[in-house]
Amino acid sequence: MPARLINWESLRAYCQRIFMSLGVPESEALVVADCLVDADLCGVESHGVSRMTVYSKRLETKVVSSVFRIVAERDYPAGLTLDGCNSMGMLVGKYAMEKCVERARVNGACFIAANNSNHYGMASYYVNMAAQAGMIGLSATNAPPNIAPWGSYKAYVGTNPLAIAAPTHGEPVLLDMAPSVVAMGKVILAAKLGKPIPEGWALTKEGKPTTDANLGKQGTVVPIGGPKGYGLSLFMDVLCGILSGAQFGPYLGNMWNDFVNPQNVGHFFCAIDISKFTDLEVFKKRIGQMICDIKALPKNEGISEIFLPGEIEQRRRTERKAGGIPVEDVVYEELCALGQKYHVEFSL
Amino acid sequence: MPARLINWESLRAYCQRIFMSLGVPESEALVVADCLVDADLCGVESHGVSRMTVYSKRLETKVVSSVFRIVAERDYPAGLTLDGCNSMGMLVGKYAMEKCVERARVNGACFIAANNSNHYGMASYYVNMAAQAGMIGLSATNAPPNIAPWGSYKAYVGTNPLAIAAPTHGEPVLLDMAPSVVAMGKVILAAKLGKPIPEGWALTKEGKPTTDANLGKQGTVVPIGGPKGYGLSLFMDVLCGILSGAQFGPYLGNMWNDFVNPQNVGHFFCAIDISKFTDLEVFKKRIGQMICDIKALPKNEGISEIFLPGEIEQRRRTERKAGGIPVEDVVYEELCALGQKYHVEFSL
Repeated sequence: MPARLINWESLRAYCQRIFMSLGVPESEALVVADCLVDADLCGVESHGVSRMTVYSKRLETKVVSSVFRIVAERDYPAGLTLDGCNSMGMLVGKYAMEKCVERARVNGACFIAANNSNHYGMASYYVNMAAQAGMIGLSATNAPPNIAPWGSYKAYVGTNPLAIAAPTHGEPVLLDMAPSVVAMGKVILAAKLGKPIPEGWALTKEGKPTTDANLGKQGTVVPIGGPKGYGLSLFMDVLCGILSGAQFGPYLGNMWNDFVNPQNVGHFFCAIDISKFTDLEVFKKRIGQMICDIKALPKNEGISEIFLPGEIEQRRRTERKAGGIPVEDVVYEELCALGQKYHVEFSL
Repeated sequence: MPARLINWESLRAYCQRIFMSLGVPESEALVVADCLVDADLCGVESHGVSRMTVYSKRLETKVVSSVFRIVAERDYPAGLTLDGCNSMGMLVGKYAMEKCVERARVNGACFIAANNSNHYGMASYYVNMAAQAGMIGLSATNAPPNIAPWGSYKAYVGTNPLAIAAPTHGEPVLLDMAPSVVAMGKVILAAKLGKPIPEGWALTKEGKPTTDANLGKQGTVVPIGGPKGYGLSLFMDVLCGILSGAQFGPYLGNMWNDFVNPQNVGHFFCAIDISKFTDLEVFKKRIGQMICDIKALPKNEGISEIFLPGEIEQRRRTERKAGGIPVEDVVYEELCALGQKYHVEFSL
């Protein structure tokens, strides 16, 4: 059955009202809903409204605080540690990147580590904020383990994503990547659909290559470049978990099945104010040259266009803002059930 | 024929004297020689004394300046742009990371972009400096193109390495990675030895997979994780080349065959002072826990020990400091010839 097409603003407003019914103030509920719906606009459905059920359950069980609070534990001109006070991750993320941009505007650059947070959705949301402010933005988060250190078969680090964005005369160039060949979500989806997975995606829990999605989802995903992807993931956890004072590696709680103990997720945010390093117009002209050059390169067979990092997602966002977001039946039904449960009129 | 074992301090002193005979002041010649020999100590021979011939030729032809000069073009508390004045890359790198550490000590973190520089050797040298100062260090450099943007077969970005280091109670954890499956140097070496290369290392100049090292070296190396490695490489060039005002992508000169035009290489450096985010002792205890956990994980078949990023190189450094650096005959003869050419008594 084809997915329904839903207007993005209606979807966002509905999600916002669900969060409000769970005690989240109106403006904060909008931020979280916007971040989720933006993921669906970009085609990153794994980080979109398909997470409404678990987010709502975490608010309902109070394992995540519905009231936003954030405190600076240490505060230097270009370096802060923030305690997210177990608030929703998107609120921590937006606050932290705004603070980063504000400080970078004065000092050239700023780096913020945040602890005691929760799942913050799509990392690209925050780096895009920096790019919109004329800065280069970087952000990462840690996540529960599903990559094994090189030489072992046991998961220890998460598929901790790293995102970087830079402004241009058009839309930002934006890279948002997990350090694994594919997201575990894709392996889980294949298992659900009873489909095999390509070799090189996942390993069994004994560390053997597998094309069986069921064995893969119990095991680990393969890091890109072997020890390189594992090393990147480990350092994202050093920056997000160990530096910030959040949990790290296997000590990080699971958002799907633990509704008692806060997760204590950690993130980092960094903003580099381009105008403090070179003229912003010169930067945009030079990155524009790079973009033109790359788009004009000769193409591989079967390739109709060469894309810059983030370009496909941005194009999809434009299309879906105009034509609607395709929402799968299972997600649509979950959204409908949430309305009934939390007494929000269903309006999609 | 087995490689000769050479004492690392003798090797360093000899390289230093060659640089001095080319007009580099004593203390600066020591920095460059130390960086090259440290690469050999770590087993990264591609960035070690095997580069002495080209480095010397670049000084002799004055395409690289033998006099170190560096100027702050823009200077903010946590963000600087440095003009390396066409000095040797190692001198730019050491100066920049020292400045980063100094500023991070005051402001929490600091980010520096450097232009008008040259090949700076092994990126890990600089991030190790930050780690020795109790900070997290990051650094990258750009390099001439040998990775094709995803969808094309034509090289545009370099195998721009990214290095990150963090202090521990023992040696730093240190990741220094190119965004390609292997370095182009390995493909070139295989071609020289007439050996095939594994599939997945390189592509022909038409973008076809190949196991022929000769075809591979005329083509491109494969980025890790496909578009992810390409994206990482592109962003390293945005930070090192476009932000700093250095050259980028294909506009970057070639160090091996252009002895007329300065390369105008760019780098970035970042230091994050851990003590401004958490207690350094707490950080070291927590990263120590991570290290212990990882080393105690169950091992894959045939694996005798699980290593942290950088651990193999550090162990090799200790061994080679004690037992000597193995220097291949071809490199040994090049070093000998340099002594004759520049009137430095051969002492290895």
